[in-house]
Amino acid sequence: MSPHKQREVDLLVTGGLVVTLDDEWTVVEDGAIAIEDGAIVSVDPSTTVQADYTASENVDAAGHIVMPGLVNAHTHAATSLFRGFADDRPLKEWLEQYIWPAEQEFVNPDTVRWGTLLAMAEMLRVGVTLFVDMYFHEEMVAEAAIQSGMRVVLGELLFDIAGPNMLAFDRALDCNRDLLERYRDVSHVSVSVQPHSTYTVSPDNLVKAKALADEYGALFGLHASETAQEVADVRARTGFSPVRLLDNLALLGPSVLLFHGVHLDDEEIELLAETATGVVHCPEANLKLASGIARLPDLLGGGVRVGLGTDGPASNNDFNMWGEIQTAAKIHRGAGQDMMATSAKQIVYMATRAGADLLGFGNEIGSLEPGKRADIILIDLDQPHLVPMYDVYSHLAYAVGRSDVTTTIIDGRLVMRNRRLLTLDEDEVVGNAREVSRKIRQWLATR
Amino acid sequence: MSPHKQREVDLLVTGGLVVTLDDEWTVVEDGAIAIEDGAIVSVDPSTTVQADYTASENVDAAGHIVMPGLVNAHTHAATSLFRGFADDRPLKEWLEQYIWPAEQEFVNPDTVRWGTLLAMAEMLRVGVTLFVDMYFHEEMVAEAAIQSGMRVVLGELLFDIAGPNMLAFDRALDCNRDLLERYRDVSHVSVSVQPHSTYTVSPDNLVKAKALADEYGALFGLHASETAQEVADVRARTGFSPVRLLDNLALLGPSVLLFHGVHLDDEEIELLAETATGVVHCPEANLKLASGIARLPDLLGGGVRVGLGTDGPASNNDFNMWGEIQTAAKIHRGAGQDMMATSAKQIVYMATRAGADLLGFGNEIGSLEPGKRADIILIDLDQPHLVPMYDVYSHLAYAVGRSDVTTTIIDGRLVMRNRRLLTLDEDEVVGNAREVSRKIRQWLATR
Repeated sequence: MSPHKQREVDLLVTGGLVVTLDDEWTVVEDGAIAIEDGAIVSVDPSTTVQADYTASENVDAAGHIVMPGLVNAHTHAATSLFRGFADDRPLKEWLEQYIWPAEQEFVNPDTVRWGTLLAMAEMLRVGVTLFVDMYFHEEMVAEAAIQSGMRVVLGELLFDIAGPNMLAFDRALDCNRDLLERYRDVSHVSVSVQPHSTYTVSPDNLVKAKALADEYGALFGLHASETAQEVADVRARTGFSPVRLLDNLALLGPSVLLFHGVHLDDEEIELLAETATGVVHCPEANLKLASGIARLPDLLGGGVRVGLGTDGPASNNDFNMWGEIQTAAKIHRGAGQDMMATSAKQIVYMATRAGADLLGFGNEIGSLEPGKRADIILIDLDQPHLVPMYDVYSHLAYAVGRSDVTTTIIDGRLVMRNRRLLTLDEDEVVGNAREVSRKIRQWLATR
Repeated sequence: MSPHKQREVDLLVTGGLVVTLDDEWTVVEDGAIAIEDGAIVSVDPSTTVQADYTASENVDAAGHIVMPGLVNAHTHAATSLFRGFADDRPLKEWLEQYIWPAEQEFVNPDTVRWGTLLAMAEMLRVGVTLFVDMYFHEEMVAEAAIQSGMRVVLGELLFDIAGPNMLAFDRALDCNRDLLERYRDVSHVSVSVQPHSTYTVSPDNLVKAKALADEYGALFGLHASETAQEVADVRARTGFSPVRLLDNLALLGPSVLLFHGVHLDDEEIELLAETATGVVHCPEANLKLASGIARLPDLLGGGVRVGLGTDGPASNNDFNMWGEIQTAAKIHRGAGQDMMATSAKQIVYMATRAGADLLGFGNEIGSLEPGKRADIILIDLDQPHLVPMYDVYSHLAYAVGRSDVTTTIIDGRLVMRNRRLLTLDEDEVVGNAREVSRKIRQWLATR
């Protein structure tokens, strides 16, 4: 090896246990990754990479797992401002007397901005590099993504009846069209169309929304079959379950995401598999809001594409994808009393590569392979709760937690290094979020 | 206030949000605790405490929750060495081909020592101040507790058939008697009697074990009704379920702990309530090992005394009581589709005060009140995932995690401060644990 043959790249990550999540489940001990213009150019043993490449920026990953960033496939980021607000009340009271009136009172572009930046600070610390967001004033989410460097798939939350954004369906859909136009060529920001659900949006409006999504080749996502009550209500009103209603309207397909998908029968699972419709599993929110336990082993066994999401912190109460991973990895074994219901590998895959695939980014991210974009996180193994290690997937599914993530790289850019955020002023974000919450607390005190 | 009236104490913790867990659920904003000779002498607003007391050692708790230490009421600490070892296999294969042969091969006083110290390093970081341990060579656990400053209730794991300690029941019981004698007056170390279960220990031996416990006024604990298979097996062999068998043998009562208690019928729940028998809920291990979901709301509703435990990391895979709290706080709502199945307060209570009560330490620890011993943890609120805060119990049950604990005090002694362990050499412990695990890994490779 002669130095003059070395190629200069932007960033080298060296000396880590590289969990690639490629098709062969390749794990490289003492592995390295070379990154140029945001793309991965090499994933190999450190000695090989260091012989071939030099870089101005070097990240020492010794004692760390190096893996793809996590994909949080369903949330409402700005509801971080309502974290743990009015918990432990019956669902109807919680929604009608607390969450909805509070949103009516406090949701505006400024609060969405700070709530989303707070969410991003937390998600970057967790190791999330891409998330799907559904809320109001989503232009603020786009701007926050540009500021933080995070990838986002966003969509204005569409209701038949005017929401806190004071827009009825057609106006909100127009706003969504504006977003589709405005961020068409903005890297990292992907605009989708996300009506709330089949129980809050009429069939006509769902069809209009899907037409808009199709016009732009955008994703189409909505809550579906989250609670038994919802399924019963939609069936009573339309004669069909949410999934069958969507099928009748020709609204299922590979660009469609159903959030939650808890209450599904066998036929519906087949229908989702046949149409390649995606499901986003949100086990912690489903538990906490008493919605039930989704049939994940049946979904996976039936060939349905499934990603993982946290839902919003008004329900969950955080963006801790590691908690979500642990819950998803354990709960189906317990609920079904079947030790083989899920495997560690399956759940880790779901939180990374399956999520990327689901959102149409399968060719760009989700695994660490040459040619893909460099969305990478580092996990510090040098801690009592991660010692000893026999199986890295077992660690990732059952033991790693949010504070173990030390470094987050998105599109080749360091956005967190040694647990310090590089693109956000965390004190400013936390301070502004607290300021908003003081007003919410005053309002709560008068209820 | 005149300085000459101030009383000199050992330690002041000031400026925190003090969650006392007393009978009135008192929470003191900007509160302080004065500690002398390991005992709490005052819990009041900081201004009051600072007017009345001075101390040589001061802990600034500004921006922190201050609360009682967590009680992990069931574990096998030294199985930290088998963390994530041979996961995702059917239960029978996992036990018979991996865990039991590995224990036969690797469990000795030295490995129990390092495994337990590793577990303690992790538990101190989590904020656990008292735990119940059942394993082999428990004298090493006692010594580790003396070294680390942790409180422990320990018992030799008793089987009819010789275990890895090469002792048959009577010899192991003699060892347990030696422990009862030896640690009789050692502060922090409490010796109990812990036969494995009704399916691995004969009725005669269970009765002998309970007699030994009663002779010393010690706790008596065993696994019971963890799996449906166990209940069926015990019923087939004895004609009774584990709980009814124990009742027939007069082995239920307020000094008895049943670990797991997953598969219980209504009558058994009544029996446990009537006899004031304790149950230790271990939801994560029950899920991961596919045992099922315990009837926690029915147990609590029926007046059964219930604590919380992690079980050992061979099954769980860590000592993260916060994960256990979150799981306990969510899963019963989801499984029963009942938003009111449990409350945040109930679960936080279970992890602290109820655990202390269950172990017979209710007068000494479990809440922060004058006269009680000072087992205290601090939780850093200045992090994105804990902003904003509307309800402190909601935060503790649904958002706080292990890395948020910054300081741990046991019996008035600082054992962790600003996330640095003060009684254990963490590098030495981790290094020795890794050394043992290298041999286990080699053994695994030959299977």
